[in-house]
Amino acid sequence: MVKMIPDNKFITQSDVPGPTREEIRCMVLCKAEVSPNDVVVDIGCGTGGLTLEFAKRARKVYAVDKNINAVNLTLENLKKHGLEHKVSIVKNDALIALKEIDRFDILMIGGSGGDLPSIIEEGYRKLGDSGRILITSILLETPVEAIKTMKKLEMKIELINVAVFRGKILERGTMMYSNNPITIISARNRGKER
Amino acid sequence: MVKMIPDNKFITQSDVPGPTREEIRCMVLCKAEVSPNDVVVDIGCGTGGLTLEFAKRARKVYAVDKNINAVNLTLENLKKHGLEHKVSIVKNDALIALKEIDRFDILMIGGSGGDLPSIIEEGYRKLGDSGRILITSILLETPVEAIKTMKKLEMKIELINVAVFRGKILERGTMMYSNNPITIISARNRGKER
Amino acid sequence: MVKMIPDNKFITQSDVPGPTREEIRCMVLCKAEVSPNDVVVDIGCGTGGLTLEFAKRARKVYAVDKNINAVNLTLENLKKHGLEHKVSIVKNDALIALKEIDRFDILMIGGSGGDLPSIIEEGYRKLGDSGRILITSILLETPVEAIKTMKKLEMKIELINVAVFRGKILERGTMMYSNNPITIISARNRGKER
Amino acid sequence: MVKMIPDNKFITQSDVPGPTREEIRCMVLCKAEVSPNDVVVDIGCGTGGLTLEFAKRARKVYAVDKNINAVNLTLENLKKHGLEHKVSIVKNDALIALKEIDRFDILMIGGSGGDLPSIIEEGYRKLGDSGRILITSILLETPVEAIKTMKKLEMKIELINVAVFRGKILERGTMMYSNNPITIISARNRGKER
Repeated sequence: MVKMIPDNKFITQSDVPGPTREEIRCMVLCKAEVSPNDVVVDIGCGTGGLTLEFAKRARKVYAVDKNINAVNLTLENLKKHGLEHKVSIVKNDALIALKEIDRFDILMIGGSGGDLPSIIEEGYRKLGDSGRILITSILLETPVEAIKTMKKLEMKIELINVAVFRGKILERGTMMYSNNPITIISARNRGKER
Repeated sequence: MVKMIPDNKFITQSDVPGPTREEIRCMVLCKAEVSPNDVVVDIGCGTGGLTLEFAKRARKVYAVDKNINAVNLTLENLKKHGLEHKVSIVKNDALIALKEIDRFDILMIGGSGGDLPSIIEEGYRKLGDSGRILITSILLETPVEAIKTMKKLEMKIELINVAVFRGKILERGTMMYSNNPITIISARNRGKER
Repeated sequence: MVKMIPDNKFITQSDVPGPTREEIRCMVLCKAEVSPNDVVVDIGCGTGGLTLEFAKRARKVYAVDKNINAVNLTLENLKKHGLEHKVSIVKNDALIALKEIDRFDILMIGGSGGDLPSIIEEGYRKLGDSGRILITSILLETPVEAIKTMKKLEMKIELINVAVFRGKILERGTMMYSNNPITIISARNRGKER
Repeated sequence: MVKMIPDNKFITQSDVPGPTREEIRCMVLCKAEVSPNDVVVDIGCGTGGLTLEFAKRARKVYAVDKNINAVNLTLENLKKHGLEHKVSIVKNDALIALKEIDRFDILMIGGSGGDLPSIIEEGYRKLGDSGRILITSILLETPVEAIKTMKKLEMKIELINVAVFRGKILERGTMMYSNNPITIISARNRGKER
């Protein structure tokens, strides 16, 4: 169990979303079942929260974002944590990027910019037999759209919605704060699954 | 069902907590079973969120806060909504205020400044046979302390923790935001209950 | 504030869903802003949880369900609580039932059996200027479908997802249990709103 | 990232609590920062959910429970997953067991049977400089009691409350179910931390 990176150890920028909170990164890693031989594609890398966690545990990560600020920020965070050698950064549309990457084991989708079904379908084609697709979403619509596509592909789908409430320990007591709820979808090839 | 006051119809002030969010006010009113004959004491009135809702539905409300800014802000909000005739404002410690009020049906405790057991005990003595104590809390410790005292008094206790997630409808989808979770305790006299 | 009916005061039947839990009924009533002059149509009345609450507070309720067991169970519960004189029970498809009801102020949709957009559109046409549509859902897909239709109708939409955790007070402490989360959508005519 | 054990791969018994759900086990492992050299003591092992996960990732685990059925069930589950060589099973009171174990890195408390402060204090004395105490709780009182003791010991405390909602993908849509919320406390030595 490699240590998680605390939220406050990421360089952030107001115009780039993220980083995905520590607890959600933890949950994604468990559901992704990432192992040292895996190649990961991280679509919509944003601040690089998930990119870095995968980089610490997988063989290779492709971090994709069409936003130049996101791409630069992810690179900065990779350097800060000495992980840039594990990651190829791709500033491009998700679909174009996916078509250029040969083969991967985990497709992580944190942001899709509108063409989620095509990204899932393209990813599905490229994934190895035991490949997994992971999606995190703060929108209501994304999970519904994802499930529809994944059902068509006859994937095995798991969906959880996670609400984490943090206690802040003050003089007068422990005040409970809440983070925004995140939906995590994990899916894999049903047919080839063992 | 008198309409709830929307959150943004309260005058707020950065140094005064509140208003209690609409959904939580709604839940408190249901649990309090407030009716037009009830006299309500609201301890720790803050911005006046619950004070105003009780004022719209009960016979009489005493709004108590030891913070002069809270007392003034509650008064402002009462005036804004034309409810000041239903409410006596008491700038004092909860315990002292409680001793001076003769009899009431609902004791609402939104803030206690440290002497919760005494406030519950004093309230319990003053409540009519069908009286109710309501507590809202954002701290972990308050419910535990309240339950301990209420168990000793052999009250009938109900506790819920409520997390409300709001959807913000944007161009790109419905983004889910979360409010901090609130614990609501409602208790009543077990012996005399029918 | 008319008292809520406790969950355990409803007659239930294993093949009929409901009753909607007390806390959710409370929240729906607040969002519906039900008043004594309102006519309410309750689509998918199930056990009658919301039907009875509306019956206690509105002028007239139409309880609609295509399931004969639901319709019978709602009637039983209405009789148990002496509310049958306020309610017309309609065993029919939602759309057919809606077309036969002349005018109403609140359209409550707790179950739609697949044709949600048409029900919302038909309801919208029949609602008075200050009419409201309320939807409760335990499915991910329903809110997404509802929002899509309501956006097209340019309604003013509010969406909350509510998770209620109940404390069970035991000898050894207060154990926290959770109810399934419910999404509540409330929408009204934007243009005519004042 | 060693794979998590699915909930349904544990042998269960109605009179023994657990297993801790997969998502909560995942979160605990992240917060515990378990590594291959760690010695773990698991107090109140129950079904063995956390025992097995630690056994897969640590050097050595002591699984403690005073309930003979829990101890037997944990052993059964260890054997089922081929992990019994990593675990010493101790059927005893937590405090007595703790006194007999020489040194450990992680103290996991899933059940304490009433003497939580002493267990924390005794654990704290035995923990190495970088030791961690983890507590999972379904009771309101446990976190409050734990924080009180940990504050006295001047530990660095983190508290989260986690609610996981699972989507069940049905023909008619994705139905959301909720698991009971769990509080996870993780604490470490503040003074010696770097």
